[in-house]
Amino acid sequence: MTLAVTERVKQILSYYSSDNPGTLTNLARLMMHGRLAGTGRMVILPVDQGFEHGPYRSFGMNPDAMDPEYHFRLAIESGCAAYAAPLGFLEAGAAKFAGQVPLILKLNNSDSLSKLEPCSALTGSVKEALRLGCVGIGFTIYPGSSSRNEMYRQLRDLTEEAKAAGLVVVTWSYPRGTNLSKEGETSLDVAAYAAHIAAQLGSHIIKVKLPKDRIEQAEAQKVYDAQKPARATLTERVRHVVNCTFNGRRIIIFSGGETKDSDEAVLEDIRAIRDGGGYGSIIGRNSFQRPFAQGKKLLEDIMDIYK
Amino acid sequence: MTLAVTERVKQILSYYSSDNPGTLTNLARLMMHGRLAGTGRMVILPVDQGFEHGPYRSFGMNPDAMDPEYHFRLAIESGCAAYAAPLGFLEAGAAKFAGQVPLILKLNNSDSLSKLEPCSALTGSVKEALRLGCVGIGFTIYPGSSSRNEMYRQLRDLTEEAKAAGLVVVTWSYPRGTNLSKEGETSLDVAAYAAHIAAQLGSHIIKVKLPKDRIEQAEAQKVYDAQKPARATLTERVRHVVNCTFNGRRIIIFSGGETKDSDEAVLEDIRAIRDGGGYGSIIGRNSFQRPFAQGKKLLEDIMDIYK
Amino acid sequence: MTLAVTERVKQILSYYSSDNPGTLTNLARLMMHGRLAGTGRMVILPVDQGFEHGPYRSFGMNPDAMDPEYHFRLAIESGCAAYAAPLGFLEAGAAKFAGQVPLILKLNNSDSLSKLEPCSALTGSVKEALRLGCVGIGFTIYPGSSSRNEMYRQLRDLTEEAKAAGLVVVTWSYPRGTNLSKEGETSLDVAAYAAHIAAQLGSHIIKVKLPKDRIEQAEAQKVYDAQKPARATLTERVRHVVNCTFNGRRIIIFSGGETKDSDEAVLEDIRAIRDGGGYGSIIGRNSFQRPFAQGKKLLEDIMDIYK
Amino acid sequence: MTLAVTERVKQILSYYSSDNPGTLTNLARLMMHGRLAGTGRMVILPVDQGFEHGPYRSFGMNPDAMDPEYHFRLAIESGCAAYAAPLGFLEAGAAKFAGQVPLILKLNNSDSLSKLEPCSALTGSVKEALRLGCVGIGFTIYPGSSSRNEMYRQLRDLTEEAKAAGLVVVTWSYPRGTNLSKEGETSLDVAAYAAHIAAQLGSHIIKVKLPKDRIEQAEAQKVYDAQKPARATLTERVRHVVNCTFNGRRIIIFSGGETKDSDEAVLEDIRAIRDGGGYGSIIGRNSFQRPFAQGKKLLEDIMDIYK
Amino acid sequence: MTLAVTERVKQILSYYSSDNPGTLTNLARLMMHGRLAGTGRMVILPVDQGFEHGPYRSFGMNPDAMDPEYHFRLAIESGCAAYAAPLGFLEAGAAKFAGQVPLILKLNNSDSLSKLEPCSALTGSVKEALRLGCVGIGFTIYPGSSSRNEMYRQLRDLTEEAKAAGLVVVTWSYPRGTNLSKEGETSLDVAAYAAHIAAQLGSHIIKVKLPKDRIEQAEAQKVYDAQKPARATLTERVRHVVNCTFNGRRIIIFSGGETKDSDEAVLEDIRAIRDGGGYGSIIGRNSFQRPFAQGKKLLEDIMDIYK
Repeated sequence: MTLAVTERVKQILSYYSSDNPGTLTNLARLMMHGRLAGTGRMVILPVDQGFEHGPYRSFGMNPDAMDPEYHFRLAIESGCAAYAAPLGFLEAGAAKFAGQVPLILKLNNSDSLSKLEPCSALTGSVKEALRLGCVGIGFTIYPGSSSRNEMYRQLRDLTEEAKAAGLVVVTWSYPRGTNLSKEGETSLDVAAYAAHIAAQLGSHIIKVKLPKDRIEQAEAQKVYDAQKPARATLTERVRHVVNCTFNGRRIIIFSGGETKDSDEAVLEDIRAIRDGGGYGSIIGRNSFQRPFAQGKKLLEDIMDIYK
Repeated sequence: MTLAVTERVKQILSYYSSDNPGTLTNLARLMMHGRLAGTGRMVILPVDQGFEHGPYRSFGMNPDAMDPEYHFRLAIESGCAAYAAPLGFLEAGAAKFAGQVPLILKLNNSDSLSKLEPCSALTGSVKEALRLGCVGIGFTIYPGSSSRNEMYRQLRDLTEEAKAAGLVVVTWSYPRGTNLSKEGETSLDVAAYAAHIAAQLGSHIIKVKLPKDRIEQAEAQKVYDAQKPARATLTERVRHVVNCTFNGRRIIIFSGGETKDSDEAVLEDIRAIRDGGGYGSIIGRNSFQRPFAQGKKLLEDIMDIYK
Repeated sequence: MTLAVTERVKQILSYYSSDNPGTLTNLARLMMHGRLAGTGRMVILPVDQGFEHGPYRSFGMNPDAMDPEYHFRLAIESGCAAYAAPLGFLEAGAAKFAGQVPLILKLNNSDSLSKLEPCSALTGSVKEALRLGCVGIGFTIYPGSSSRNEMYRQLRDLTEEAKAAGLVVVTWSYPRGTNLSKEGETSLDVAAYAAHIAAQLGSHIIKVKLPKDRIEQAEAQKVYDAQKPARATLTERVRHVVNCTFNGRRIIIFSGGETKDSDEAVLEDIRAIRDGGGYGSIIGRNSFQRPFAQGKKLLEDIMDIYK
Repeated sequence: MTLAVTERVKQILSYYSSDNPGTLTNLARLMMHGRLAGTGRMVILPVDQGFEHGPYRSFGMNPDAMDPEYHFRLAIESGCAAYAAPLGFLEAGAAKFAGQVPLILKLNNSDSLSKLEPCSALTGSVKEALRLGCVGIGFTIYPGSSSRNEMYRQLRDLTEEAKAAGLVVVTWSYPRGTNLSKEGETSLDVAAYAAHIAAQLGSHIIKVKLPKDRIEQAEAQKVYDAQKPARATLTERVRHVVNCTFNGRRIIIFSGGETKDSDEAVLEDIRAIRDGGGYGSIIGRNSFQRPFAQGKKLLEDIMDIYK
Repeated sequence: MTLAVTERVKQILSYYSSDNPGTLTNLARLMMHGRLAGTGRMVILPVDQGFEHGPYRSFGMNPDAMDPEYHFRLAIESGCAAYAAPLGFLEAGAAKFAGQVPLILKLNNSDSLSKLEPCSALTGSVKEALRLGCVGIGFTIYPGSSSRNEMYRQLRDLTEEAKAAGLVVVTWSYPRGTNLSKEGETSLDVAAYAAHIAAQLGSHIIKVKLPKDRIEQAEAQKVYDAQKPARATLTERVRHVVNCTFNGRRIIIFSGGETKDSDEAVLEDIRAIRDGGGYGSIIGRNSFQRPFAQGKKLLEDIMDIYK
């Protein structure tokens, strides 16, 4: 027998009552798949680093990961809720692994071959997502960049089309651009703001980076000073971002960040996300930039914390 | 953890290698859901009798079944692979029960308010199937009827559109019409022929009635007389129909037929389908025209035979 | 102060959870307008008799009703939930009375200038309904007629388009055609069947005629004989139709029928609809084929029964 | 090294100089594939009998042929120029056997479940032919039938679309219908006429039945009597049909007809086709209604005659 | 008899299991044509230099090559797997040489009449590719250029359309633009990155330049320093690029580069490509910028190395 949809999952679905049953169904599929099925938490494996940073920089430390099937297997065997990647990587396994893990087609990507301000190119479509059997589409926006408005408009168009087709919209919201300091990108106010923008654009699932205890914007600083929300610990900062993302009525997940030396450091972050009310993680480099068994083990350890 | 896709399911998916990953994914979802998940067998609950025969004639003997949510619950709680119904019935529960059972939107239906030769009306669309989160579309053809060619053409058009969108096509193939005798409708040659036509039209799953030991067509009779395929038992006749449907390379399932007095008679048929190599059953009236607990029990008993 | 949406209205809206917020909003507008606002009951004023029967035959006995503004005023002043009419009548007042009463654009109509089997022509569109500020579209089907399948298909197409645009779909379901006896048109089984078909086609509000204590179809007769549902009184027959329309999970309303001599006869029917669980009435000829004040009075008396 | 296109093939391609390079390329592919590659002759394996006559009547005498892969293997291993079948049969192997034999998608088919005058239903499309990698489309017309004009119009539409997409049009031209005597169907004048109609409709390859020494039409009889074309032998009749089909400037091939008892009878016909200037054969039942090795052997023997 | 598809070709086709049979068929045609048919290796003749560099600069040293038929003959007689060119060159011979060599329509081209940063113009379409009988489309992207995102988007759109029509997508991935140093264009990390991007965009065949033993990007340098992949020899660098292109699960071929003085230098490169696991070469200037016989001889020598 397959698992029954849990009360927690039904509660989360109720946050999306303006969506059609198709989108609710695909959201449920995500939340009812894998090791965390039914818990309302999720770990997604994203592999667009090859496109974003180059293949060897991404996979050179674990050459097996050059093979697109590697990532399907990693997501499936560790029990991730979904596997997200650009067109090429999904096409290389979607037929062979059909039905074994929910797929998310990343519809835009930015390469790092130029020194230009990063701006993602469209690399997929809603029709391709349907053709490949995906539960949703993925899209990256760079709040703070000069091209933000064009990116918002593209996301808007794709979101409308995806929702009509019953798909889920997953947005990577990364503050970035010449108009933001490097430190500003992970400031608490900016991270919370980026999450909120993605939610306002109609995204179902939002991914941001874990925020630091720092406020970037002067105008925001005044309110933070006056209200003094708890933000000393990572747990408190996660809670703040969740709070800023429709008070938890949208699924907000966090990136694992850059490759960490110590697994304990990664797991520490996960506990903070869990305790702060985050919905889960997107774990890329920390999982596939190491031997398969170790990556699988880390993903499982992470999921066990979320259980 | 969710169930891993089994070797048997992978084998069946391999029969559909010309289909895109989206369709393979939805086929896998059907075969990996419910009590028979992973076995390669399936029981589908279809409820279009209200449209086809009228509501009271269909549900009067079990008034609870007037409620559209009844059928969602019956399919979910008994562990059916899918629930198939017209637009109205699916809309009445698709959001509430999102993700709990694969749905099939019946795209045509024929009412029985006139004495005209039956011809189904289009009552749904591929876009609606996506909106409601369905894994596939359902369509009825009446081989032998005057309107058969129009029905084949409609199915052809919808099949092309559904496949591009990654959906599964389920065809009810019912020989019927002024050109066929009543007995001919369930003759072995005619049933096998009807299944074969649906397969040639590109259907993924085909449903026909259980055939009788009778040959209708004179030209076919000659070959049956010469070759003498075993057909005395229902098991043998099921095997014959499976054989005639691309030698088992298409999923062929059988109807439960009219309401039976004895459950044992129903279960006897199921054993014959199983032993003859059929892929499963569509069980409508025999399941919902009785109290919920009894209907659920019968569906479970049926599935246990297929296990 | 405008009224707060009541619990009863929220409950009814919950039956339509697969619909988008636009459609839910327009449904709520209907149910929160006029004398019956918040009760979950409704009286709609329909004026398509000019098109259907000819103007003088329809309005000659009350020449004021020739003026399209007459009907806007009647609907507004009596507190009807909505006013439904063909394109021309709505255009003649939609700007002037904007926001004063919910409008329903009748999208098909049948004239009676020929002796042909009736078949409605398309006389409006979803875009026109939006242009005129309507809450919904209206459509008539004739189950039992030779052209039923074409009508179902048209309704299907318009329903998909209307729902995407956030409109409500109101279906007049009138069994009619050469294949049905005159008495059969209002037989209990046929009326219940006609309501059920409209619901399966995805209609939000369904209007049928009040049924007589008579069964038309031999196959249905068997079930009625076996189950013996109460049907001696009009109240019981209304309850039966409500039951057959998704067990009351779709709004089912009843026509006032032909012009009645006595208002008491009309009101008697209303009490039966109320007691049988019907959602309300469409009252045309009985309201506008008499002086304004009398028509208004009758509508108010009817609504007071529903309160 | 692959075979170089021969002078004979280039000559035949020159007959189609109004066609675009895409269609010429696909015509060349047909003529440069298999055992007869480069000879300008071709043998095509057609398997639509399952749809046309029913599965058991078609394959019962050789049950292995129930398997759709059987026919791919038979066409490939015997070296046929192409394999032609309806959607379902092609889909069941097109991916697995990609590139191994040119495919022709039969776009219409007629079942024999009713006693109605035969009329083919549309069962495929030009887009599906491209999706499946076909070199061309196949279509059947019934000159002489009441539905001939509708069939001609469908063929015309599909021909225009197929040619724009670079596909080849193969037409089965079968005189048939209530307006033709059974004997008339294979009369010399009628066969020649049917071939000519298909050529006039723009077909690239035309298939007719082998004609008898008989003239059906009184008006034609006068000219045959006056001119006395040689028609006593099958070779002469084939030459006559070739002559009537644009004087050999269109590829005209002949059916093998009903299952023959003696292979020598089949081969005798082939020699007549060859000597009469026919371009080749479509051999269905005589090849797949016997064990694989025998069918392959017969196809090879036939091709060796054409070499 | 034509060649049977080899196991190696079937293995390569299996890497593309998400593609439809049409695309698989055209991929098979490429791999089963010419001198290297069946080996899984390919040499493609590309002639877009006239558009890219001007006619006399491209062909002045071998005036016979001004004639578009020259290149068809060169590709055909040497046994290339395909001939790729812009619309005009293909149209000049596609009919005359139909079926003699697989064609690839280059859909964009950049002229060098201005000093602007290069950016290709659209010069063809998928429909034109079908009209001309091509097996695929060709497209150039310039990773690293300011217009990269627009080029990726165009390729994305064309790829979706081409795949639906069963065509193969061949991408020339040339790092170029004001943001990349001239040396950076052929740095190992950049070449590998460019190939990976083309693969992620869904290309079936990818062409890059042979890389030098140099790392351009500082971030990549760290990983190269840490992992120390072998890259001293060209063979090792080819292996590295193949590895970075989905671990060899996409067909990656290499350009011959600028005109070389010595054939031996060219052949030396080919041996390195072969030994490094590359799928083959695109040889333009080194083949047609010399007398026909010499060019043909060089192509044959190259192919013999790949055999």
